[in-house]
Amino acid sequence: MTVKAYGAQAAHTPLAALHIVRREPGPNDVKIDIAFCGVCHSDLHQARGEWDNTVWPCVPGHEIVGHVSAVGRGVTRFEVGDTVGVGCMVGSCGHCAPCERGLEQYCDNGTVYTYNSPIQDPPGHTMGGYSQQIVVQESFVLKISHPREQLAAVAPLLCAGITTYSPLRHWKTGPGKKVGIVGIGGLGHMGIKLAHAMGAHTVAFTTSENKRAAARELGADDVIVSKNAEEMEAHANSFDFILNTVAASHNLDAFTDLLKLDGTMTLVGVPEHPHPSPDISHLIFKRRQIAGSLIGGIAETQEMLNFCAEKGIVADIEMIPIQKINDAYDRMVRSDVKYRFVIDNATLAAA
Amino acid sequence: MTVKAYGAQAAHTPLAALHIVRREPGPNDVKIDIAFCGVCHSDLHQARGEWDNTVWPCVPGHEIVGHVSAVGRGVTRFEVGDTVGVGCMVGSCGHCAPCERGLEQYCDNGTVYTYNSPIQDPPGHTMGGYSQQIVVQESFVLKISHPREQLAAVAPLLCAGITTYSPLRHWKTGPGKKVGIVGIGGLGHMGIKLAHAMGAHTVAFTTSENKRAAARELGADDVIVSKNAEEMEAHANSFDFILNTVAASHNLDAFTDLLKLDGTMTLVGVPEHPHPSPDISHLIFKRRQIAGSLIGGIAETQEMLNFCAEKGIVADIEMIPIQKINDAYDRMVRSDVKYRFVIDNATLAAA
Repeated sequence: MTVKAYGAQAAHTPLAALHIVRREPGPNDVKIDIAFCGVCHSDLHQARGEWDNTVWPCVPGHEIVGHVSAVGRGVTRFEVGDTVGVGCMVGSCGHCAPCERGLEQYCDNGTVYTYNSPIQDPPGHTMGGYSQQIVVQESFVLKISHPREQLAAVAPLLCAGITTYSPLRHWKTGPGKKVGIVGIGGLGHMGIKLAHAMGAHTVAFTTSENKRAAARELGADDVIVSKNAEEMEAHANSFDFILNTVAASHNLDAFTDLLKLDGTMTLVGVPEHPHPSPDISHLIFKRRQIAGSLIGGIAETQEMLNFCAEKGIVADIEMIPIQKINDAYDRMVRSDVKYRFVIDNATLAAA
Repeated sequence: MTVKAYGAQAAHTPLAALHIVRREPGPNDVKIDIAFCGVCHSDLHQARGEWDNTVWPCVPGHEIVGHVSAVGRGVTRFEVGDTVGVGCMVGSCGHCAPCERGLEQYCDNGTVYTYNSPIQDPPGHTMGGYSQQIVVQESFVLKISHPREQLAAVAPLLCAGITTYSPLRHWKTGPGKKVGIVGIGGLGHMGIKLAHAMGAHTVAFTTSENKRAAARELGADDVIVSKNAEEMEAHANSFDFILNTVAASHNLDAFTDLLKLDGTMTLVGVPEHPHPSPDISHLIFKRRQIAGSLIGGIAETQEMLNFCAEKGIVADIEMIPIQKINDAYDRMVRSDVKYRFVIDNATLAAA
């Protein structure tokens, strides 16, 4: 089955229309007509070959929402017409210790990512959601119960949502906890909404004085301009948890110093250049921790989608036709988006 | 009350005999005739002014054991003749959140360390265990139940012991857990003994091929020479917990890579020069953590002493007269000690 898609043929060529082959649905597969696909910073890094791991052609996209258009005979949880989502993963070994805990993203034998991962299907690697259709095994397909008119804004939950939800849950964010979110971008704006909805006292950190109001609108109880040393100092030793969504190299010590005894700062972005080496005394003198976290497992992603549907949470998005994807990438590099681009995949028909 | 002591008058002068004043025991004080005092690397750093926080004259020593020679009228837990210990702390505010949890070492209002901390007593700062006697409030005095002939070897438990015991307990070392100890020095040799006694599969990391046998004698189930990349790689993704006792700047990534999902590496030494910045992807892709830990609270120090007495654990020591302290410091810098110097405080009489 050949479908229209948008992808990069090489690191330095812009994304353009191409045709790709999807497998016919096997017994346990779900075929999805993609309605919308969010645009993640990872898409840009991989389409431009910046992580040195890209296989060409590269069709990015791992914030996929749409409707089931066919199911294999072994599929039990989905029917044609269901509204569904696919996130960053489409497979894992299923039998290692992390997989058995429902943490497929940490699979010891290699998570199969939604694009750029080796598979048997032609052309030998996965291709993502910048396409009309995708075929995914049932166990990696998520149910979406948001109202249909919110569907485009649900797409970013599949990566930005779960990437922030999972650490907020793992480190027990909730009522009585003071939680910081560093960075107000695609991930951070979801982090603010989610931490607030979990009942935590949610504090947004930004480098821009002019983002204060926007952060409050997203649900922040307080906003700290991190360049303002006095403002930072007033919050020293007071945070239970800080979720740091900034991948750009920056001074971590300014934030670890704000954690209380036994507090954790969790990073979800890999910096292109290393952060300045963290001051270990900040960790030792308050038994603080610096941790990392990667997206979330399938069961937890479903839990997050249900939580968001119940609380009425979606991403703040700007819709684009696929033909504007290269412009959108350039704008992402300049942080000129509030807060996530989402592709209207119907525009692929004209591609 | 004037007692003999050994201390430094300035950063670049060797330690020498001096007389210091101890306060008369107040109602809640315990007066201790010091029998032995362990020699910690922190002593050297502070006596030589290397941490830029030393107040002169500096009388180091925070691994103190001895016998009670007087008690204030309000003292209930100790009697004259009792065998007791004093570790790194002699006071804290007692009412902040960490103090209320029995974590006086993390006191929000400033732990009073056994030496080099501001107090009201002359000369305005605390002076430690390189002295004949010390007066300490009852609540910071520990009971020692080891056999009397082991007393000198008990002294290092008061810092090296608790500094390794506390993180091993906090991160739930025990049967079924694979635990690494990095560095086989004053702290590391205690870490090996304690992790082994807690029932963990204990793996010692050393840079020296010739420390393999010694590490096994201390209780290591396995020994890894960390310079050997193949040997390291064979243990990738397998450790529940790594206790890193090496303060010298070194590559942390080689160790974080050995942690399994949700594993933690805890550092207990502040490096003079920063470690190379840790690779954040090592944390993100297995939800690993880098943490710090500082000694342990008073209640936990008592628990550790009781545990060691029950298990027959003491430090491996080399006894020295106080007159050899400057040589001992030079040897410590060369790591020429197995594994802790302990001062025979009776030798102060001739000082």
